[in-house]
Amino acid sequence: MAEIELGITADMHVHLRDGKMMELVAPTVREGGVSIAYIMPNLVPPVTTIDRVVEYKKLLQALAPKTTFLMSFYLCKELTPELINEAAKLGAIQGVKCYPAGVTTNSAAGVDPNDFSSFYGIFKAMEENNLVLNLHGERPPSKDEDIHVLNAEPKFLPALIKLSQDFPNLKIILEHCTTKAAIDTVRSLHKENPNCKVAATITAHHLYLTIDSWAGNPINFCKPVAKLPEDLRALVDAATSGEPYFFFGSDSAPHPIESKARHVGVCAGVFTQSHAIAYVAEIFHAAGKLENIKKFVSDNGVAFYGLSSDDVISKDTVVLVERENYVPEIIGNDTLKVVPFRAGEKLRYAVEWRS
Amino acid sequence: MAEIELGITADMHVHLRDGKMMELVAPTVREGGVSIAYIMPNLVPPVTTIDRVVEYKKLLQALAPKTTFLMSFYLCKELTPELINEAAKLGAIQGVKCYPAGVTTNSAAGVDPNDFSSFYGIFKAMEENNLVLNLHGERPPSKDEDIHVLNAEPKFLPALIKLSQDFPNLKIILEHCTTKAAIDTVRSLHKENPNCKVAATITAHHLYLTIDSWAGNPINFCKPVAKLPEDLRALVDAATSGEPYFFFGSDSAPHPIESKARHVGVCAGVFTQSHAIAYVAEIFHAAGKLENIKKFVSDNGVAFYGLSSDDVISKDTVVLVERENYVPEIIGNDTLKVVPFRAGEKLRYAVEWRS
Repeated sequence: MAEIELGITADMHVHLRDGKMMELVAPTVREGGVSIAYIMPNLVPPVTTIDRVVEYKKLLQALAPKTTFLMSFYLCKELTPELINEAAKLGAIQGVKCYPAGVTTNSAAGVDPNDFSSFYGIFKAMEENNLVLNLHGERPPSKDEDIHVLNAEPKFLPALIKLSQDFPNLKIILEHCTTKAAIDTVRSLHKENPNCKVAATITAHHLYLTIDSWAGNPINFCKPVAKLPEDLRALVDAATSGEPYFFFGSDSAPHPIESKARHVGVCAGVFTQSHAIAYVAEIFHAAGKLENIKKFVSDNGVAFYGLSSDDVISKDTVVLVERENYVPEIIGNDTLKVVPFRAGEKLRYAVEWRS
Repeated sequence: MAEIELGITADMHVHLRDGKMMELVAPTVREGGVSIAYIMPNLVPPVTTIDRVVEYKKLLQALAPKTTFLMSFYLCKELTPELINEAAKLGAIQGVKCYPAGVTTNSAAGVDPNDFSSFYGIFKAMEENNLVLNLHGERPPSKDEDIHVLNAEPKFLPALIKLSQDFPNLKIILEHCTTKAAIDTVRSLHKENPNCKVAATITAHHLYLTIDSWAGNPINFCKPVAKLPEDLRALVDAATSGEPYFFFGSDSAPHPIESKARHVGVCAGVFTQSHAIAYVAEIFHAAGKLENIKKFVSDNGVAFYGLSSDDVISKDTVVLVERENYVPEIIGNDTLKVVPFRAGEKLRYAVEWRS
């Protein structure tokens, strides 16, 4: 049986929510084969203080003692450079997540990507403290400017380029990128500047889906939406390339099934946490690129965040094994049910933990 | 109060289903302000015989005695030129609907638009009998050919052009067109050939929706899907232009709410029948083109089908009146509920019938 040693795996974009949903999904980080999880701050209200981020991490750690949680603030006008300095010195956060207002779940408190200038003091403090800026890279929908779910990411790319020029030493991640235009832009930035600090995360589900996958199947509806076949090919090419600035961030985003099976107001998000590494492995297998999977799900993300083994709670490593792995129809219990990505389907790989 | 005389209105693309759904929606044709309805044949099994089309029309007529029903066959290999000749001579059908296999609700028995040649005998018989060919103008989805919900209609247009060249005297309708490319193609065919027999229907909902409208709102999901803002603008421009080859076909397609509020396998279709003319009027009002609405919802379609007053069961006419008109949240009863387009919203116009 083929086995591939993946080392200390990392999922650099994880939604674990709070309350009952958190209790359900926090343990699935490890079940899915992930050692290090970078946690999104879009709770209601958003996570913007040291007290809350410490408290949130404590709750998560109690639910998943072997998982290493990296924490983040939600970029908004309540943040100050002083707060960033203090949070960084305490090691309370590893980065700050920027949501353009209104683009996805719990983003109402977000910012206007046309005008990042009011946050430049924050970005400077982040740069000095080696924190990561995590960008949800979409312009908000606008009828006046013809911005819609398909071009919202390409239309955001000029803002990414400008930020990378204005803060050449700030580590910036274009999160859950979904378009060939985004992949091309990240590569182009690195070609122009070998010291470029811009990276991109790619989800598991965006390595499978196109627009046809969510048309009529709300379970596959997420933001950014999955795009066209040429975009899918570009994402698979980038993920499997081994290039150091592309790495895994699942953007696994659980919602109760009631929030997905609706005729209006379906929540955006695909839940992949429980089988995260297995979903990715399937794609690398199909692409004939399994030799690069460790870079994508372990090495590249860990290196970009500058993590050392001291930062990792459990030294257990992950091994990918070729073995039938059925995705259940539902994850949950009598009162809370989440439908996982590719529910009911058979995957080719599973994960094992080695101490 | 402003009133606009619309005469004998026509909706040239109507799904009335069968059984309980037919009983619910057949009366809504008149409620929506439509006198003449061209009925789609995609029942299960599809309508392909004279007996069935006569029986179907009889059922509809009993439910809606004042509505004029124009009937159609479902294009498939069971049809023969002899059958077409006979059906035409009996006046049993006014046209034949062509569904590419697999593109929408109940299209499994459809044809391959890459190869219409096996139907050329049928088309010739239709041309001789002055019947209309109603095209669902989408190529089926194909990973190999990168055909997806966004380009399925543009990719079909070469087949439309070829048919119009091979059968210059066959009346062809590109049904429920959704793209600027389709509008441009129809106009271009008429520019090249003033005797061109190609027309296009436009729905009410495609005069409102874009991709963002159905992303996360399955109630607005239909096939062909609503496209981009530039497509919407082209459709509104064509519908309100008064050009004789653009007219109204609602493609109103009722589904029980259970078939729309699902996390997978949402049925494609938007139900607009009950407020059909009012939805359209709102768009003409906003475009400042109310002077052309009669052409779109009455004159152009009636002229294209070559109907005379003898073909119309009731001589009652429709008047558009400016009056608050609330769309209900649900149309139906305890056992069958359909959510109408723009449920719960207020429309600016209503219809009245005049004897």
